[in-house]
Amino acid sequence: MNFLSEKAKRLTPYVAGLQPQGGGWVKLNTNENPYPPAPGVFEVIRNADAEKLRLYPDGESGALKKAISAALNVNEDNVFCANSSDEVLALAFQAFFSGKDNVKTPDISYGFYPVWGEMYDVGLDFVPVGEDFSINISTYEGANGVIIANPNAPTSLALSLSDVEKVLNQNTNGIVVFDEAYIDFAQVQSAISLVPRYKNLLVVRTFSKSHSLAGLRVGYAIGDPALIDGLRRVRDAFNSYPLDMLAQLGAAAAISDTAYLQKTCAQVIATRDKTAAELRKLGFRVLPSQANFIFMHSENAAQLYEYLLQNKIIARHWKKISEYLRVSIGTESDMEVFVSCVKQFLNETQKKQA
Amino acid sequence: MNFLSEKAKRLTPYVAGLQPQGGGWVKLNTNENPYPPAPGVFEVIRNADAEKLRLYPDGESGALKKAISAALNVNEDNVFCANSSDEVLALAFQAFFSGKDNVKTPDISYGFYPVWGEMYDVGLDFVPVGEDFSINISTYEGANGVIIANPNAPTSLALSLSDVEKVLNQNTNGIVVFDEAYIDFAQVQSAISLVPRYKNLLVVRTFSKSHSLAGLRVGYAIGDPALIDGLRRVRDAFNSYPLDMLAQLGAAAAISDTAYLQKTCAQVIATRDKTAAELRKLGFRVLPSQANFIFMHSENAAQLYEYLLQNKIIARHWKKISEYLRVSIGTESDMEVFVSCVKQFLNETQKKQA
Repeated sequence: MNFLSEKAKRLTPYVAGLQPQGGGWVKLNTNENPYPPAPGVFEVIRNADAEKLRLYPDGESGALKKAISAALNVNEDNVFCANSSDEVLALAFQAFFSGKDNVKTPDISYGFYPVWGEMYDVGLDFVPVGEDFSINISTYEGANGVIIANPNAPTSLALSLSDVEKVLNQNTNGIVVFDEAYIDFAQVQSAISLVPRYKNLLVVRTFSKSHSLAGLRVGYAIGDPALIDGLRRVRDAFNSYPLDMLAQLGAAAAISDTAYLQKTCAQVIATRDKTAAELRKLGFRVLPSQANFIFMHSENAAQLYEYLLQNKIIARHWKKISEYLRVSIGTESDMEVFVSCVKQFLNETQKKQA
Repeated sequence: MNFLSEKAKRLTPYVAGLQPQGGGWVKLNTNENPYPPAPGVFEVIRNADAEKLRLYPDGESGALKKAISAALNVNEDNVFCANSSDEVLALAFQAFFSGKDNVKTPDISYGFYPVWGEMYDVGLDFVPVGEDFSINISTYEGANGVIIANPNAPTSLALSLSDVEKVLNQNTNGIVVFDEAYIDFAQVQSAISLVPRYKNLLVVRTFSKSHSLAGLRVGYAIGDPALIDGLRRVRDAFNSYPLDMLAQLGAAAAISDTAYLQKTCAQVIATRDKTAAELRKLGFRVLPSQANFIFMHSENAAQLYEYLLQNKIIARHWKKISEYLRVSIGTESDMEVFVSCVKQFLNETQKKQA
């Protein structure tokens, strides 16, 4: 017999990108950062007082909140920390969207949104993006809630701060979540500066991308204290201590080193723009990326994906958007390997057609 | 206006024990272990390759599962790991109990069970414990699900393995969860040996107590592979990578050192039994503990709690069970301080009455 609850039976779990074990792979499928974490992260972990691990960690992540508030110039009561931005978003769905309908989100975006929608009884309204994958903000008016990844994934496109503000003004009856996982790689500005003026704004961030800490699982939200309290309420009905002591220490060290953040983001951006230019020279359409990945068109995207995989390069391909590949930005050398493999693919394809 | 979902408004969050900042406290309120983690934990954290933190961790916690399966003599497909046993339990509520009624649990037990019941739409049936706080297993027959902490908290009492097996046989239509957070301090045997024979059994464990790793947030479940798959399904509809790289490393090191586990548990047990004996000599009724805490009767429990607090000793007291205190077992010296403060309280109380 099947012991699963009806809810568990019904749900459609998220499928994360492949995590190959063993070496030799050029891994461009989960938007990890090719550079190591800030030097301070190595230091705080090496010097951590493991004896303290016998005690529960600070459930409020006080020192980490302090570091975040200093780095981003917000108040500590504007900050909420949890075990990855996925967890923060899952808690936000429960705190603000659960049981509501007409919660709008782009139809092409992060694959976890529909999963949480199903999981937490949210009536998501998937708004089609344009032919060019752009988000038309007028279609988000009057929702009971909005969630938009900005920059969006996998499209790599971003909304300007003035468009973000329009979405907030159009939706004063519901919470508007901007998921800024990739914002540090963008030209557009973060919505964080709007937090003091918009009580319906929640900005969600992660340490997994620009801070090179995917392995540490730390995410956070910035918003009005009333929203932070709402997230805390839901957290305390689930797991009171979501962040372990070492994760709190490492993330605080990372966000305090703004020079390192800027340097590594600049490197990723330079490599991204160079890679995109080379692909365009080869005749590919590449969307103007504001993230640490590119979204490229290819009529043979599925074959290209497989060809790359055979050559131990992993990109990301979805059947739903079958003529596109999403490719994370690795080191200069990773991307040279990638571009050269793409050239090889073009040559072999042309030979076959000849 | 209040943006909270109806669900978030309705729920009653769990209230964890005080976590005083600053030193000088004798902290006997959250059942932490007074001894440091196993030496191997210090070593793996000091030597961890922080460069790897740029990558997502192994979502399946493969190496940790391997270490758990070796230590407990179960198959790897019997093991599920997550960010604390609280998270494991919250996922189990969703996977197996959500939407069901007649899920039985003792009326005096871990305070998070009713919270998850409310949160995940579970109709919990709170079965009264006896006058002596014992669990009468015949009252658990024919439930759609059962969750029992064994040993139970805050009572410190445990069910024998044969009683555990009777509960399993009485409830073949639903999942029976035994929450064994404190089992390493008990005389009774773990239910893990029954996993191969009972497809309805889920055993939940934590690294927070006997492994001295409350600060690392690691919990796990042992059960039939079908149940493990169910937990994985729910996890992947919530947060695919619940355990960071360092938590996986530290927990694997801890569970591999069985000699250290046995040694520190024996120390805690010896201190517990000595403390209980001293309190009994002072005239207190103390339940026969099988955990790393004691549950003691005092007509003036509320006053004793406050008196201890004034002397920088924190125990746990609930209004619902107002004539009892739960006191975690610290070091020998912690417990001497505690017993001497209790004596002082008795002296002062007698003086006032005289």
